[in-house]
Amino acid sequence: VWTQQITVYDQENFQGKRLEFTSACQNIMECSVDNIRSLKVECGAWAGYEHSSFCGQQFVLERGEYPHWESWSGSNAYHIERMMSFRPICSANHKESKMVLFERENFIGRQWEINDDYPSLQAMGWSNNEIGSMQVQSGAWVCYQFPGYRGYQYIMECDRHGGEYKHYREWGSHAQSFQVQSLRRIQQ
Amino acid sequence: VWTQQITVYDQENFQGKRLEFTSACQNIMECSVDNIRSLKVECGAWAGYEHSSFCGQQFVLERGEYPHWESWSGSNAYHIERMMSFRPICSANHKESKMVLFERENFIGRQWEINDDYPSLQAMGWSNNEIGSMQVQSGAWVCYQFPGYRGYQYIMECDRHGGEYKHYREWGSHAQSFQVQSLRRIQQ
Repeated sequence: VWTQQITVYDQENFQGKRLEFTSACQNIMECSVDNIRSLKVECGAWAGYEHSSFCGQQFVLERGEYPHWESWSGSNAYHIERMMSFRPICSANHKESKMVLFERENFIGRQWEINDDYPSLQAMGWSNNEIGSMQVQSGAWVCYQFPGYRGYQYIMECDRHGGEYKHYREWGSHAQSFQVQSLRRIQQ
Repeated sequence: VWTQQITVYDQENFQGKRLEFTSACQNIMECSVDNIRSLKVECGAWAGYEHSSFCGQQFVLERGEYPHWESWSGSNAYHIERMMSFRPICSANHKESKMVLFERENFIGRQWEINDDYPSLQAMGWSNNEIGSMQVQSGAWVCYQFPGYRGYQYIMECDRHGGEYKHYREWGSHAQSFQVQSLRRIQQ
């Protein structure tokens, strides 16, 4: 039994060349596919990336069917239709996920320990539309630029960077600001 | 103290003509604005609609800042840049939200009572990528076409339709299929 499995297709609607993976793929072009245009996550949670070697925009991919690019991307402000690499996400037991948010970079300022999903951080009492830095203590999380889980996605994991994300430059090569307005745990 | 408040602008990035609302707006053109291009939800949860009179695509708007159309729409498959009407959503205490999912239309087939958020219904044991019908017993919910809260949104409330949504034709004028792969409670 595989704990992670993803099937990708080089055409929309699960058509064209079909490839199955149970571990990371650093560059889909090495599998003689020029791009991924649809996919099915059969098991586990995965991180998809705009560019090879896990660079560029990030997309959380949970179990289910994604018939075209728009079904996994939440940011059309910066319109790209590419997914060139992907890898499994190692998330904790959902109930045990824990993270600390800091008002300012380098883990300073007001702090807030969270262990739940927040479609609107401001509705729950966070004072503005930014987070300065984050410390993931358990599990894997996805942060979003806008409320309601929209806009750029930033995947944060306790077993990467030692769980420490002290400036937006460490959130991913696509991050351009501290703006985060919703976040949630990633489930297997 | 208002329990609901939304500020809308007729230009992107909170520019241009500015209007504040504490109750529903059936047609923004009656306020001499041709379209909404950015908004801030100051308090409460709101439902935005593509057309006047609460028709067309639906968007959940929770507290926070939405600087342009892409920040509230999750479906660019069907690309519209309009929001012509909006209204407050009356949601229950978050912990008390309850809904029953049915495998087939008219409340028949396999059923499942839920009271939590599900970024992937299939990961939690639902057998396919569709829901036949739904009964909202408490609170307000938003269902999404794709996993991870992406694609078309369908807002379901216990105090509308008597909480009964027996066919996708009752989910909204934009619904074209039974496809639902994630859903969550709406918080105030």
